[in-house]
Amino acid sequence: VTAMKIAVLGTGPVGQAIAGRLAELGHDVTVGTRDPEATRTRTDDSGTATYAAWQQDHPAVALATFEDAARGADLVVNAAGGNVSLDILDQAGDEHLADKVLLDISNPLDHSQGFPPRLFVKDDDSLAEMIQRAHPRARVVKALNTLTSSLMVHPETLGEETTVFVSGDDAGAKATVVGLLGELGHTDVIDLGDLSTARGAEMWLPFWIRIAMALGGSDFNIKVVRGAGVVNDR
Amino acid sequence: VTAMKIAVLGTGPVGQAIAGRLAELGHDVTVGTRDPEATRTRTDDSGTATYAAWQQDHPAVALATFEDAARGADLVVNAAGGNVSLDILDQAGDEHLADKVLLDISNPLDHSQGFPPRLFVKDDDSLAEMIQRAHPRARVVKALNTLTSSLMVHPETLGEETTVFVSGDDAGAKATVVGLLGELGHTDVIDLGDLSTARGAEMWLPFWIRIAMALGGSDFNIKVVRGAGVVNDR
Repeated sequence: VTAMKIAVLGTGPVGQAIAGRLAELGHDVTVGTRDPEATRTRTDDSGTATYAAWQQDHPAVALATFEDAARGADLVVNAAGGNVSLDILDQAGDEHLADKVLLDISNPLDHSQGFPPRLFVKDDDSLAEMIQRAHPRARVVKALNTLTSSLMVHPETLGEETTVFVSGDDAGAKATVVGLLGELGHTDVIDLGDLSTARGAEMWLPFWIRIAMALGGSDFNIKVVRGAGVVNDR
Repeated sequence: VTAMKIAVLGTGPVGQAIAGRLAELGHDVTVGTRDPEATRTRTDDSGTATYAAWQQDHPAVALATFEDAARGADLVVNAAGGNVSLDILDQAGDEHLADKVLLDISNPLDHSQGFPPRLFVKDDDSLAEMIQRAHPRARVVKALNTLTSSLMVHPETLGEETTVFVSGDDAGAKATVVGLLGELGHTDVIDLGDLSTARGAEMWLPFWIRIAMALGGSDFNIKVVRGAGVVNDR
């Protein structure tokens, strides 16, 4: 494993899971946030300092503004909510995303109409493509948006190989992300094709949500079971 | 297995797969079509009589108009294309669907904009719900729209248990469909909940299509692999 300088934009469950695990694996990780001091002192309803508590368990992970995190990074992870992703990537700065692999984990969930959320883009466009259009020089790869954060970084806990997916227009960037996915323990990665295939991966979310509701939890992933009629099998 | 009188609306690959297998299993199956004589004499580009050839291999399956097929049935299967489903169910006759289980396999694919198709309903509504609203007394259950027709009826060919789903507002109707799915060899059936959950199962299709494109074939299905954090496990 070659250590990379990685910026993880977003301090929520996805950001924490990805940043913590990539740091454990030896990468030089900086979490990006709007206001680092506010993030450090943020408390939940019970008065617990939430990010600070996580930071104590992950002392190797740095915290910086979106812009500072992206500026110093070789690879940028969008671990922010879909509804704020475009704004956060603007704050990171177009010039700091140029020529870098941008791993986009976000989902275009619209929570404004209640639960279950709808998608604010779908079918003839995707959030990944919106991000790519906003930052044409970034090398956007959609991946890991199809499963819960704990399984993004520890798929082996399911006790069985399951499947993840990559979409992107830049073959080299996809290869880099597939390498990272391998470090995280993902051994079955389907390359869906160009970035427009992220429309499929993002439209999975409404189904994922209904399955999670039925199962009473998000601790599941899909395995794509191939039959003999599949041509491009592994 | 209690034999049922089943109408299968649609003469395409889904209709043929479902009708043929249910007849093999001992059910009394009638395929519904717009014009039975036209269906019997229809040829493909090479002049081959397509339905007639299939009919020869499945002599026990009757052929009738949509209306006659539905009139005589205990259970109706919508195996038609999504774009014609509402029209075909109207032809079957609302009174012939009343109080019957209506297994809806269709997908709301809009092929008018090229490939891959888009969905003509999604996110805040579904084709299953449109069908239910058009036929309020039918007991609509969405199922089997998530995999290719050959695997609907022979999932064991994958060599491994995979997952199918049911959505519907009528618990008894869902139980009947789960029973049929079991006869077809489906041992892992997730009950997603009420019929609105069909929005999720239908939005799977754009993802399914991209996976099929990547794999070079439709001979695959998903297995929902559950971890210890799932509450409603089997």
